[in-house]
Amino acid sequence: MDLTALRKSNPEHWDKAAAIRTLTLDAVAAANSGHSGMPMGMADVATVLFEKHLKFDAANPNWPDRDRFILSAGHGSMLVYSLLYLTGHADVTLEEIKNFRQMGAKTAGHPENFLIDAVETTTGPLGQGISNAVGFAMAEEIQRAHYGKKVVDHYTYVIAGDGCLMEGVSQEAITLAGRHELSKLIVFWDNNNITIDGTVDIADRTDQVRRFAASGWHVIEIDGHDPKAIDAAITQAKSSKKPTMIACESHIALGHAAQDTSKGHGALTDQDQLKAAKEGYGWPHAAFEIPAAVKSAWEAIGTRGATERAAWEDRFAQISERKQAEFNRAYAFEAPKKLAGAIRAFKKQASEDQPKLATRASSEKVLGIVNPILTETVGGSADLTGSNNTKTADMGVFLPENRKGRYIHYGIREHGMAAAMNGMALHGGIRPYGGTFMAFTDYARPSMRLAALMKVPTVFVMTHDSIGLGEDGPTHQPVEHLAISRATPNTYVFRPADTVETAEAWELALTFKDSPSVLSLTRQGVPTVRKDHKTKNLTAQGAYVLADAETKRQAILIATGSEVSLAMEAKAMLEADGIGTRVVSMPCMELFAQQDEAYRKRVLPGGTVRVGIEAAVRAGGWDRWLLGERGREAKSGFIGMSSFGASAPAGELYKHFGITAEATVAKVKELLS
Amino acid sequence: MDLTALRKSNPEHWDKAAAIRTLTLDAVAAANSGHSGMPMGMADVATVLFEKHLKFDAANPNWPDRDRFILSAGHGSMLVYSLLYLTGHADVTLEEIKNFRQMGAKTAGHPENFLIDAVETTTGPLGQGISNAVGFAMAEEIQRAHYGKKVVDHYTYVIAGDGCLMEGVSQEAITLAGRHELSKLIVFWDNNNITIDGTVDIADRTDQVRRFAASGWHVIEIDGHDPKAIDAAITQAKSSKKPTMIACESHIALGHAAQDTSKGHGALTDQDQLKAAKEGYGWPHAAFEIPAAVKSAWEAIGTRGATERAAWEDRFAQISERKQAEFNRAYAFEAPKKLAGAIRAFKKQASEDQPKLATRASSEKVLGIVNPILTETVGGSADLTGSNNTKTADMGVFLPENRKGRYIHYGIREHGMAAAMNGMALHGGIRPYGGTFMAFTDYARPSMRLAALMKVPTVFVMTHDSIGLGEDGPTHQPVEHLAISRATPNTYVFRPADTVETAEAWELALTFKDSPSVLSLTRQGVPTVRKDHKTKNLTAQGAYVLADAETKRQAILIATGSEVSLAMEAKAMLEADGIGTRVVSMPCMELFAQQDEAYRKRVLPGGTVRVGIEAAVRAGGWDRWLLGERGREAKSGFIGMSSFGASAPAGELYKHFGITAEATVAKVKELLS
Repeated sequence: MDLTALRKSNPEHWDKAAAIRTLTLDAVAAANSGHSGMPMGMADVATVLFEKHLKFDAANPNWPDRDRFILSAGHGSMLVYSLLYLTGHADVTLEEIKNFRQMGAKTAGHPENFLIDAVETTTGPLGQGISNAVGFAMAEEIQRAHYGKKVVDHYTYVIAGDGCLMEGVSQEAITLAGRHELSKLIVFWDNNNITIDGTVDIADRTDQVRRFAASGWHVIEIDGHDPKAIDAAITQAKSSKKPTMIACESHIALGHAAQDTSKGHGALTDQDQLKAAKEGYGWPHAAFEIPAAVKSAWEAIGTRGATERAAWEDRFAQISERKQAEFNRAYAFEAPKKLAGAIRAFKKQASEDQPKLATRASSEKVLGIVNPILTETVGGSADLTGSNNTKTADMGVFLPENRKGRYIHYGIREHGMAAAMNGMALHGGIRPYGGTFMAFTDYARPSMRLAALMKVPTVFVMTHDSIGLGEDGPTHQPVEHLAISRATPNTYVFRPADTVETAEAWELALTFKDSPSVLSLTRQGVPTVRKDHKTKNLTAQGAYVLADAETKRQAILIATGSEVSLAMEAKAMLEADGIGTRVVSMPCMELFAQQDEAYRKRVLPGGTVRVGIEAAVRAGGWDRWLLGERGREAKSGFIGMSSFGASAPAGELYKHFGITAEATVAKVKELLS
Repeated sequence: MDLTALRKSNPEHWDKAAAIRTLTLDAVAAANSGHSGMPMGMADVATVLFEKHLKFDAANPNWPDRDRFILSAGHGSMLVYSLLYLTGHADVTLEEIKNFRQMGAKTAGHPENFLIDAVETTTGPLGQGISNAVGFAMAEEIQRAHYGKKVVDHYTYVIAGDGCLMEGVSQEAITLAGRHELSKLIVFWDNNNITIDGTVDIADRTDQVRRFAASGWHVIEIDGHDPKAIDAAITQAKSSKKPTMIACESHIALGHAAQDTSKGHGALTDQDQLKAAKEGYGWPHAAFEIPAAVKSAWEAIGTRGATERAAWEDRFAQISERKQAEFNRAYAFEAPKKLAGAIRAFKKQASEDQPKLATRASSEKVLGIVNPILTETVGGSADLTGSNNTKTADMGVFLPENRKGRYIHYGIREHGMAAAMNGMALHGGIRPYGGTFMAFTDYARPSMRLAALMKVPTVFVMTHDSIGLGEDGPTHQPVEHLAISRATPNTYVFRPADTVETAEAWELALTFKDSPSVLSLTRQGVPTVRKDHKTKNLTAQGAYVLADAETKRQAILIATGSEVSLAMEAKAMLEADGIGTRVVSMPCMELFAQQDEAYRKRVLPGGTVRVGIEAAVRAGGWDRWLLGERGREAKSGFIGMSSFGASAPAGELYKHFGITAEATVAKVKELLS
C-alpha cells in the first residue's frame, strides 16, 4: 500500500483513521497484550461508517432508535474503544484507553456490553456478534411493525472477520437473515486473508461472496481502504431489499512492519516498529496524543446525531401514552402489573383441575396466558415447535410479509437461535424465548454462556429433559445438561414439577432483568403435585416443603421436575411403613441457595436422612444439598443417572436405571438401617 | 409420483427399495415411534449405492478397507437397520428389526456405533455425521499416503438431510472438506424440502448447490428416485477431484398419504394408511415379510464384496510385517510398547530439570516425544497452533499436496474439528488430538459429548484453562468448563500440575481405547512440583499425596493444575505456623473415583480439615472430595471462582478473586478455629 498517496488523496479522512490506528498501537503497547492489526486494518471502514452513516449520539448511547454497531471480531476491541473515545462517549475516557486490559478498566480485552453503554454486545468468541446482529435486526423489524417507523427505524452494522465467517454459527445466522430478508442488516467482512495460524488459505478457501449470495444476501466488493468506495457501498447497502455483505479487501496492521502477516494479528509492541508505522502515517504526535483538530472533527461526528435524536424524542412523544409506556416498560424489562394476577389465577385453576400434563404442555398453557399480556415476547423453536410447545395462537409467524409476527421458525439452528435471542434482548424492547431439546443445550452453549455473562434475560425452553423422552435414545437424553447450566454463573435453571410450578417458573423468568433462565421441561406427562393453591410463588424460594412427614420425620426426599411425583409416591410407601418422610420440591437450586440460612435450615434441617432424586447426574449440584447444608449430620443418598441413557419406552428406562419410588424407598431404608 | 410407472420401469430395483420402505413402516408401527419418512424417501438412493457402489462385506463389517456409509440424518435409522438386515449383517436380525427402539435392542432410536459394528458413527444430533465424515475421509487420505493404495483405498458416503445442512457445524465441515479436496467424500443431500415445522422454506431458502460450490465441492443434481441417475451420479462423483455433493430431489414418506408433508417426517402408524402405501408399492406381503427373491437379491449384495475383501487380505499380507503390525496396533488403539519407557525417561529428566513451564508448553514437549513413537497420532488446532502448542516438528502439515502430513490446520472451527477428530478415531488407524482454548469447549461440546457416548479416545487439548490466561477477559476464561466435562459420563478430565503430570496425563490419554480425554492446560508458567522422580504414573490413580504433613496432620489441601504449586506455598506457610498440612494433587477426579476405598481413604483420611483449590467453580466435582469421602468428619472449604472472570493481568486476577496461598492459609485457620 502506498500510504502517502492514500493520505494525500483524503487527508482529513486519513487523520481520523490514523487516530484509531495510533490509539490502538499505543494502547496495545502499554498493555503489552491485545490485538493491534484488526483495528488498523478496518480503521478506514469504521471512520466512514461513523462519519457519514451511523446514526448515534455520543451523549445518549442508549437512545433506542440509534443504529447498532457490532464488532463481531471482538479481539479488535481497540477499534471500538478508539471510536468511542474519539467521538466523546463518557464511558471511554483517555484514561480508560491508557488502562486498556487492566484491572477495573472498562476497556477490557474484549468489548463487554455490561461495562460500556455503547458496546451493544459482548464479543470475542467468534461468530457471536454477527449472529447476535440477526436478532438485533429482527428486533428492529418487529418493533418497527409494532410502533411504526417514526419511532423505530435504524440499521444494524457489523464488522466480522474471517474467524467469524469460519465459525459454523455464522452460517446459521446468515441463512436466517437471508430467509427473513433482514435488509437493514449490513455486515462488513474484514477480508484481510490472515488468521493466527497463517493466511486464511491454509485452512479455508471458501468463496465468501458466493456463499453469502447463496444465502440470500446482497454482496458488494470494495477496497477497504478507499473512503469513497466505502461510502458508496454503505449507501447502496442501505437501500438494498436484502441483507448486505460488504467484502472489504483490507490490510491487517496497515502500515506496520507486520502488515499482512499473522504476527500483525496479535500485540504489536516493538517500539521501533511502532515509531516507523506512525512515521508512515505522517503522525508525529506523542503516544495517546490526538491533535485538537482531529479530536474535534471526531467529536463533531459524536454530536452529529443529537438533532436527529431530539427529533425522535418529539416523534416519540406523539405516540399514545399507552404505547409510550409499553415501549419504555419493555425496554426496562419490566413485566406488566397484570402478569402476577394472571399467573395466580392460572395456578389456582391448575390446582383445582389437577391435570396430568407434560410440563412442556403446561408451559404452552402458561404462554397462552403470558403472550397476550407481554406484547414484547418473541417466541420460537429450532424446528421443534410442536415438541417444545413454544407457539401460542396469538403470536403470528415472523416473515418478510408479516413483520408483526412474534413467532420465529428458527430452523435447525439451535446456536443461531440462542445468539439471535440474545441479540433481541440486547437490542431492547423484546423479551425472547426459544425452544429445543435439552440435550441440544450443547449446540446452543456458546450463546447460553454469553447470555449469562452479558446479563440478558433470554429464556431457553429446554424440553425432553431426561430419559423420560424414551425411544430417541442417549443422543437425545440429557443427563449432564442440568449440571452444565447450573455450573454456569448467573443462570437460573428451573425444573418444575407440574403445571403450577411451571407457571411460577415462567413468572420468575419473565421478571428477571439481568439473568437468563433455562426451563427444563418434560416430554412425558406428570401429575399435579401442587394441589393446594398458594398465592405466593413458592418456586421463588427455589425449594420448599411440598409435603411434610406425617409421623416423626426420619427422611427428607429432595426432588425436581418429573421426579417430584415419584418422591410423593415413595413418601406414601414410607409413611405406610411408619417412616415419617418430608418431600422437598426443589425447582431452582440457584434461588434456594440465595435464601437466608434460616429458611434453608427450615426446609433442610439436619439430623435427618436425605435422598435426592433427579433423572440426571449427581454432579448437577446435588452434593451441596445432600452432603452440605447440615447434611453431615445424617446419611444421604442419590437416585439418578450415572451413565448415558438408552433407547426404550420411558417407563422401562426409569426402571432400568433404577429411578423409581421402590428404589427410593429401598435407599431410605438402607440409610436408616 | 407415479409409483406404478416407477415400479414398472425397474421392478427389481423397485422391490429392493420397497423392502426398505416396508420394513421401515412395519418397524415404526410396531414401536409406535420413530421416523418413517426419511428411509422411505431415500430408499432408492441407498439401494443403488449398496447394490452398485458401496464396497463392503456383510460378513466382515470391520474390514478396514471397506467404504464407509454414514447416515447423518440419524433419525432415519430404519434405513440403516433395513439395509443391514437385508444384506445379512449378523448384528441386525429380523428379531432386532421387530424390536426397533425397545429395551436392549441393537436397533436403537438413532444408530449407535457401539451397538452395531456396521454403524460407523452415532448420529441423531444433526450435522454430526457429515462432520464426522470429513474426519473419515481425512483418515483415509492419511492412511493411504502412509500404507499405499493397495491397503487403503475407499470412499466415505454420507446421507444428510436439510437439518444436517442447516446446522452450523455442517458449514465448518464442508468448507474444511473443500479446502482439503477430500475427493473421496461423497454426500447425498436428501432434498425433500420438509422439516418438522413445515416446508424447509419456512425457515431457510439457502441455495445449497451454490453454497457447496462456494465451498469447493463438485455438485450434481438428480432425481433421487431415478436409479439410473443415482448410479451415474455416484460414478461421476467417484472420479471427481473434489468432494461431491449429490443433491437428490426426493419425496419424504414416498407413497404414503403423508408424502411430502411434515407429518411424513415422524412416526407413520395408521394401519389403513400403511396398508394403502404397501398397495401402492405393489407389496402384498405381511408385516416384516420380505419375499425370498428380494431377500436373496439383497444378500447377494451383502456378499458381493467378499472377493474384494479376500484380495485385500492378500495384498495386506504382502506389506512388511512391521507395517502390518503397526496398522493392526493402531486399529486396536494399542500404544506402542516404547511409549511407557519414553514417558518415564522424559519424567525423570523433568524432575531433574524442574522447569517452570506452562503446562501447554510441557504438553508440546511431551508431544515431541510421543509423535515420533505413535505414528498414528494426527494433531491439530482450531487456528491456535502457537497457543495450544499442538504441533511438533516431525508431523508435516496435512494438505492436498502433502497427504502424509499429520498436522491439520482446522481453521476457526472448534466444532468441526472435534467432529472430524471423532471421525478419524472411528475410521480407525488414527489417534487424533486437537486444541483450542478451554472456554471454547462450548463450541465443541456436541462432538465432545458424542466422543464419550461413542467410546472413542479423542484427545481434546484445552489450553488457557482459567483466569490465568489474563487480559483476554471473561469470554475467554473458563470457570464452568471443568465442571461441564467432568459431569459428562465416560470422559477423563486431566488438569496436570506440572511437566511431569502433563507427561503422565498424555500417557494415559494415549492408552485409552474407549474414552475421550480432556487435557486442561495452563497458559501461564507453573513450577515443577514433582521433584522426586517416580517410575509409576501417579496420575493414573487420579489423586495422590504430593507432600505430607511435616508435623501432626491438621489440614489437607487438595488442588489441581496451576493451583497445586499454590497449595505447596500455602503448606509451607502453614507448616511454618505449626499446622501440619498434606497436599494432595488431584489431576483426574474420574480416575481417583475409580480407585478402591482403601486407597481413597489413605489419600483423604477423615477427621482432618480439607480445602479444595481450583481456579474454577466448586460445582466442578469438588463437593464429593470436600463433603463426601469422610469429609463429614471435619470442616472443609473451597478456594476458587464463583463468578465469571475479568480482564487484567493474571497475577492481579488471582489476587482479585482471592485464589492465593494467603487466602488458603486463612481458610485453613478459619476452619481449624
